Amino acid sequence: MLNQQRINEMKERVFEANQALPQLGLVKLTWGNVSEIDRELGIVVIKPSGVDYAEMKKEQMVVTDLKGNVLEEKSLRPSSDLATHIVLYENMTEIHSIVHTHSTHAVMWAQAGREVPAYGTTHADTFYGSIPCTRQLTEKEVQEAYEVYTGKVIVETFLKEKKEAVDVPGVLVFGHGPFTWGETAKKAVQNSLVLEEVCEMARQTEELNAKAEPIPQYLLDKHYYRKHGKNAYYGQK
Amino acid sequence: MLNQQRINEMKERVFEANQALPQLGLVKLTWGNVSEIDRELGIVVIKPSGVDYAEMKKEQMVVTDLKGNVLEEKSLRPSSDLATHIVLYENMTEIHSIVHTHSTHAVMWAQAGREVPAYGTTHADTFYGSIPCTRQLTEKEVQEAYEVYTGKVIVETFLKEKKEAVDVPGVLVFGHGPFTWGETAKKAVQNSLVLEEVCEMARQTEELNAKAEPIPQYLLDKHYYRKHGKNAYYGQK
Amino acid sequence: MLNQQRINEMKERVFEANQALPQLGLVKLTWGNVSEIDRELGIVVIKPSGVDYAEMKKEQMVVTDLKGNVLEEKSLRPSSDLATHIVLYENMTEIHSIVHTHSTHAVMWAQAGREVPAYGTTHADTFYGSIPCTRQLTEKEVQEAYEVYTGKVIVETFLKEKKEAVDVPGVLVFGHGPFTWGETAKKAVQNSLVLEEVCEMARQTEELNAKAEPIPQYLLDKHYYRKHGKNAYYGQK
Amino acid sequence: MLNQQRINEMKERVFEANQALPQLGLVKLTWGNVSEIDRELGIVVIKPSGVDYAEMKKEQMVVTDLKGNVLEEKSLRPSSDLATHIVLYENMTEIHSIVHTHSTHAVMWAQAGREVPAYGTTHADTFYGSIPCTRQLTEKEVQEAYEVYTGKVIVETFLKEKKEAVDVPGVLVFGHGPFTWGETAKKAVQNSLVLEEVCEMARQTEELNAKAEPIPQYLLDKHYYRKHGKNAYYGQK
Repeated sequence: MLNQQRINEMKERVFEANQALPQLGLVKLTWGNVSEIDRELGIVVIKPSGVDYAEMKKEQMVVTDLKGNVLEEKSLRPSSDLATHIVLYENMTEIHSIVHTHSTHAVMWAQAGREVPAYGTTHADTFYGSIPCTRQLTEKEVQEAYEVYTGKVIVETFLKEKKEAVDVPGVLVFGHGPFTWGETAKKAVQNSLVLEEVCEMARQTEELNAKAEPIPQYLLDKHYYRKHGKNAYYGQK
Repeated sequence: MLNQQRINEMKERVFEANQALPQLGLVKLTWGNVSEIDRELGIVVIKPSGVDYAEMKKEQMVVTDLKGNVLEEKSLRPSSDLATHIVLYENMTEIHSIVHTHSTHAVMWAQAGREVPAYGTTHADTFYGSIPCTRQLTEKEVQEAYEVYTGKVIVETFLKEKKEAVDVPGVLVFGHGPFTWGETAKKAVQNSLVLEEVCEMARQTEELNAKAEPIPQYLLDKHYYRKHGKNAYYGQK
Repeated sequence: MLNQQRINEMKERVFEANQALPQLGLVKLTWGNVSEIDRELGIVVIKPSGVDYAEMKKEQMVVTDLKGNVLEEKSLRPSSDLATHIVLYENMTEIHSIVHTHSTHAVMWAQAGREVPAYGTTHADTFYGSIPCTRQLTEKEVQEAYEVYTGKVIVETFLKEKKEAVDVPGVLVFGHGPFTWGETAKKAVQNSLVLEEVCEMARQTEELNAKAEPIPQYLLDKHYYRKHGKNAYYGQK
Repeated sequence: MLNQQRINEMKERVFEANQALPQLGLVKLTWGNVSEIDRELGIVVIKPSGVDYAEMKKEQMVVTDLKGNVLEEKSLRPSSDLATHIVLYENMTEIHSIVHTHSTHAVMWAQAGREVPAYGTTHADTFYGSIPCTRQLTEKEVQEAYEVYTGKVIVETFLKEKKEAVDVPGVLVFGHGPFTWGETAKKAVQNSLVLEEVCEMARQTEELNAKAEPIPQYLLDKHYYRKHGKNAYYGQK
């Protein structure tokens, strides 16, 4: 009973977060999805696959276990990207929600196969350093288990670049698009919005100054830790 | 009687699809038109020429036979692009609706005379490979039967490039703009939206990386066939 | 009495056309103005200077004679660009309404000091050939009678480039921005919208293809005369 | 009593001006803040730190003295940028309101570390000459008193470039973003809007013409003094 209430609240939050994506201009048509994990209950709630945002209902959010098995009868099919979410939840144990979009400027960087340099404080307020771009998936990976390897190549990228998921709450998948995450579904959506914005800013920064440099480490530290960690002083207590 | 009902339903769908174009930001003023064909009844329904979207009524949608002859008394004149639509319906027998717009980014590529490379999965989810651009029409073609040859040069382009209309549901006409199509009017409009979006993404992908490459064939296959054909697993059953 | 009714109707049209500018995204703050001329009555109606669009009332539209003298008691001051409008009305005798904006993309071309090439049919449907950009005004002209010479340099440009105001219903003033005109206030506003759109398209056409060429004369003729003149067949009879 | 009324009116104006920022598209999430000073009362009113615009109330605007000490009990914490505002108020004695945003195009120029040239009259109507960009702050400055030195580097920039705050009501802070100011909160917000617009125009002016030049001094003078100072003739008396 109590658990059902928690699940219903997850469904509500996941529904609201999914609805926010087209409202914020981050998603067109049915592109994009949000999920949330409850590690205690061992469940994930995610958007159903290919349902119009305008017709979607919160009851339709899909409940699965941590292997991706659908738990409710009469459930719709989960987002086809569920397997990617699950790999990320398994490997990034501090995150509670994941967002995937095809937002315009983030996709451009993903298609260009480039990490996004931290050119300013707008970036540093949310992302501690450059936002990485994965390598291209191999033919074998794509054919064997595309969505699983999409998650794996993200984890590989963070390991290789020695980045922590909590410090850099987003990534670009080569040729595909962005994933972001956060402590809550609302925060994960906000991180998608920030990612889109800094991608637009960064592209045109380079047009204005072909020799533009990332901000110095001390300014990155200042802005990031002004908002995060025990010495943060931005916002209300 | 029954036929009249089918025609009325076509008019309604064509009207709704036309109205969607300015709502989606794909059309300004009176630029753009949608048509639908009923191959059994041998009729086409298309937007009237040069009527303001705000004042347009569904009853005003124009009904013609497959030669473009207006069938209803007191009909408004059909879109001046009707002849193009008819050539496409004759030659692309699987399609049921056609959309023409002057959407900003698609027109840029058409004016640049370039095909749109498949730089990412956003593209591959809808278009199986690059989106072609026709050759320039000759003076003779333009003067003799401009709208007919606009259709013919599209057909010629698909033949020459060995592309199937169902796999690549859109094209750019050199110096002019995009046409898209689909199984339904709604789908054809969505394809216009996707085309506009991938045109914007592709342009700026090249700005970010002058050596950007189309995605590999195996990723194109994966994304396209995840959504299309008998092995598709995106969306609800 | 009758004349007063005609003036009231002009005020209403000029008011509506002015209101359309921010609604269409062509004007921010109080930048921009629309006027209309009644050559029979010998009057011009124009937006008052520097009044917020949200607070503007149709009664506040300013009525002047053809020298720019305000005719109504308790009138607000006319737009500071009135003198430019009057020079254009004197020299372009077929036009009945003028619009000035600082719309983003048109201003870019004006600041770059470049004419806008006719890269496509979107352009050709409204502008018969390239949209010219004036020379820079001299110091003497600016100091002596800035707004008058702004009008004169436009007239000079059309004379020098052998363009007719009816065929090319708009111009860029170097370092400043666009003026458009038309047979009616509504049409003049639409021409501002088209100008803004083709300016955006043209800029990015060049980015996509540094060797992009204007469309051939025969296609320009086809599209322009499909919509204008005695052989036009676009729209309703 | 009277003073409380003045403070309440300040709170209302500061609240309205803060609300205008997301409405004008200048601010996303909680980025940005507006303050106002009353030099007679010796107080500053500023936005609280990190509060959602949608949930913000006018009573929550924070009242401080000219050292930045919060004056009301149960006050929320002031914007983390308060110290920057205070340094500017101390050094720019003619200004009464300050706005900070992370608006997209202004940030690009700040990230590129470039001043914005006065390429046209849209710029000259508000900013008398180029809009400066500060130097990068040093590590010592950032660590010692980041927000204070952000104000100081702005003051230093205006001194070094011999610009007056009243003539150039805005600045870019290197790697960070824009600050603007004005005689009233409404005017300071408008200046942020103009800055964003001219930043967008200037970037693309350079794309269209790599050799674009700022407008000549006499045109800058004409447009700026048409709107400002004792000989202004724009707007109503």
